[in-house]
Amino acid sequence: MHDLIIIGAGPAGLSAGIFAGRRGLKTLILSDPDLPSQATLAPRVDDYPGLPNISGMELVKKMKEHALSFGVEFREERVLGVKKQEDGFRVVTFSTEYPAKALIFATGAKHRKAEIPGEERFLGKGVSYCASCDGPLFAGKRVLVIGGGDTAVTSAIYLHDLGARVTLVHRRDQLRAAESLQKELEKKGIEILWNSVVKEIKGENFVSSAVIQDVKTGETRELETQGIFILIGTVPVSELARNLGLELENGFIKVDERQKTNLEGVWAAGDCCTRPSKKIAVAAGDGAVAAEEAYKWLKGF
Amino acid sequence: MHDLIIIGAGPAGLSAGIFAGRRGLKTLILSDPDLPSQATLAPRVDDYPGLPNISGMELVKKMKEHALSFGVEFREERVLGVKKQEDGFRVVTFSTEYPAKALIFATGAKHRKAEIPGEERFLGKGVSYCASCDGPLFAGKRVLVIGGGDTAVTSAIYLHDLGARVTLVHRRDQLRAAESLQKELEKKGIEILWNSVVKEIKGENFVSSAVIQDVKTGETRELETQGIFILIGTVPVSELARNLGLELENGFIKVDERQKTNLEGVWAAGDCCTRPSKKIAVAAGDGAVAAEEAYKWLKGF
Repeated sequence: MHDLIIIGAGPAGLSAGIFAGRRGLKTLILSDPDLPSQATLAPRVDDYPGLPNISGMELVKKMKEHALSFGVEFREERVLGVKKQEDGFRVVTFSTEYPAKALIFATGAKHRKAEIPGEERFLGKGVSYCASCDGPLFAGKRVLVIGGGDTAVTSAIYLHDLGARVTLVHRRDQLRAAESLQKELEKKGIEILWNSVVKEIKGENFVSSAVIQDVKTGETRELETQGIFILIGTVPVSELARNLGLELENGFIKVDERQKTNLEGVWAAGDCCTRPSKKIAVAAGDGAVAAEEAYKWLKGF
Repeated sequence: MHDLIIIGAGPAGLSAGIFAGRRGLKTLILSDPDLPSQATLAPRVDDYPGLPNISGMELVKKMKEHALSFGVEFREERVLGVKKQEDGFRVVTFSTEYPAKALIFATGAKHRKAEIPGEERFLGKGVSYCASCDGPLFAGKRVLVIGGGDTAVTSAIYLHDLGARVTLVHRRDQLRAAESLQKELEKKGIEILWNSVVKEIKGENFVSSAVIQDVKTGETRELETQGIFILIGTVPVSELARNLGLELENGFIKVDERQKTNLEGVWAAGDCCTRPSKKIAVAAGDGAVAAEEAYKWLKGF
């Protein structure tokens, strides 16, 4: 039986693993191979203190190696359900069941869909939610990036640097992204369509154009494009938590200042839970708190 | 006038600086040159996710460079006081006054004194609160390390590796330090005096011995030693905050889950404030939250 099972292998889960491992807890991290951490999809992370301008993939790899160095076990198995039992919990995967005394949910978030006609049909055929995964296919091509936050802007810059002809499409008249990123966008001369939304994605086998609407005038026009990157934020992954009976708030797992959920023996950290900033540094800090609290609870301190 | 002044240049203050700088806030970090961050004193930090086994000094240097890359200003000036004004705050140092719209307190913590006879008298003459600062002077000598937490244990290992003959003196029968560190201590054969306290430090010009008491039997004995490292935890630095009218709890600056204090326009992060774990990763995460919240408040979001 494991002392602690952590569900999710993004920055929150890995940080929790590091702190649990160095405390000597028998710790297992389970992750869904089909739902990689949002952090691994970021072409560039510029705000993790002490490691500036690292790719998300590289940062997550470093954190995983760090957790491995403390003897944490990893398995890539999708968790189907979690059951409460008298002596703890039972985490059910497709292949087996793992008993554990305590749990940390670090299930993260997944990309938000734009709900545009053509979005589903052209997924993998020009439509993407991850610039660092699919970007290299679009060198020399015309792409639209939908969004206005840090992820959309770093992705636009990344695609531009790969040699794509990038247009950022944003529904408002200003971006939410960090000032430093906005300046870089401007310096690179990346075009922005303000107050604009994509109403439809068109093509035959692959994306060939998009219908853009100006939200102020209502006017529409069709733009030729080979790629459409939809980067309009995330939604928390919390179905497992809800099924176990954890309290949610707008879909986020509700935690107190010690990352404790409403269920004894269960903590949560990272983008799946109610914490103000969805930043890698915050996920790492909260993962540390969750593991330290789980350790104290397990040892009866 | 600065948008934001951060008081303290440890992990919490530097992380806040990184996030404020990338948001384009005109940001100044003030630090007391006589009160370095506790993090810089750690010979080895093994739990900052992604940067395993780095010296505290090196980690803080990386974070400072990261903040500098976003245009954050630094000044090494001790803050004497902070005044609330109609349009914000005025931070008073020995040489000048800096006006600012918002403040983040990241004043950290300082070492706890043992209150032992001889402790003051022999400070710098065998008594030290920082192994990485003073350790090299004790190669080949006998030293006592007082404490049982992560700092005491990493310091004992560090001094042992420098060639000192180390004895750890701990008042309880088990250590609070991480399991991984305890194993390393054992593997290196470092002697531990359990259930023991130092009652007096003796010597002429320099430390030459210590009186040790067994807390169970009450028996005392004198041990020859050239060095005594006192590493029994920290106390928050919060006098400036108290004088400004910030609410404290057991000496810690009281913050909510968004790192906000009771005073509008003032946030706090790191070891000076009420957050469960005093870890560098947590300080960095909370510094990020404080800066993001200050940014939103300044911009009226």
